[in-house]
This record gives sequence, structure tokens and C-alpha cells, in this order.
Amino acid sequence: MTAYTATVTVRLKHGVLDPEAETTKRSLERLGFDLEALRSTDRYEIDLEAESAGDAEAEVEEMAERLLANPTIHDYDIDVAERE
Amino acid sequence: MTAYTATVTVRLKHGVLDPEAETTKRSLERLGFDLEALRSTDRYEIDLEAESAGDAEAEVEEMAERLLANPTIHDYDIDVAERE
Repeated sequence: MTAYTATVTVRLKHGVLDPEAETTKRSLERLGFDLEALRSTDRYEIDLEAESAGDAEAEVEEMAERLLANPTIHDYDIDVAERE
Repeated sequence: MTAYTATVTVRLKHGVLDPEAETTKRSLERLGFDLEALRSTDRYEIDLEAESAGDAEAEVEEMAERLLANPTIHDYDIDVAERE
């Protein structure tokens, strides 16, 4: 078994409203900042052991499908790296 | 003025408890997944215009200090890229 760290980035699909990001953007504008857009994403870094990078990715993809992301509103990316 | 997208990654400092990540980890374990650790980070992608990448970074650093991160418990990284 090899030690891996998988990074899962979960973002809202295009067109899904993000009221939290909208509030953050307005708060920054109220502080005097000038910005065109703000998007927020969640990232999870998961340490796990697996036989191969492919196995680690498959395992983490199942975690994303079952818990970390809601496929109706979210897209996600998975990135797997070997851990020292 | 040039269009930039700045990415701010906000993570808890080492040693600061993260009950949300702990709950997510336990939920995954309850679903039968085997993982060693789970860390969560917040990411903001900010579209803004600035004279230079350095100016954009300085502006976003001030946003992080004033609103996006709490310097007592968070570390943050900023990454600036030119936008098409």
C-alpha cells in the first residue's frame, strides 16, 4: 500500500446561484474594494492508503459522489499525489 | 488596466481544531471509507482589474487581511494570473 493525498475541489455548476459568494463580494465592496466577480470553492485534502494512484482516485471519486459533492449542483475535480 | 483572477486559499493554522472536517471524516468512515486524515480549505477566485500583477496581489492581500481570513486562526496563499 502506498500513501496518497487526494485533493477534491468542489465548485458550484455554472448558473447555480451562490448567495455566500455574493454576500462576500458585497462586503468587500462595502469596504471599498473594486472587484468584478467572486467565486468560492471548497477543497478537501484527504490522506489515504491505496495500491495505486488509480485506486486512490477511484476511492476518492466515490467519496465525492456519495458525500462531498451534490451532483445536481456541483462539479468536482480530483487530484492525487503520492505522499512522502 | 489589465484583467486578473486572484485565487485566495484560506486554511486553518496547524493545531487549530477543525470540527467540520472531523465531522466529514467521520461521516465518510460511517459510509465504509478508510482514510487517515481530512483537511478542508476555502478558496476564493476573485476577478479584478489592476495596473500590474503586483498591484492585484497587494489589493487581494488586503481583502484577505480585512475579510477573507482571520489572521489569528488562518493562513492564506494568494496566486494571481492574467485573465483572457
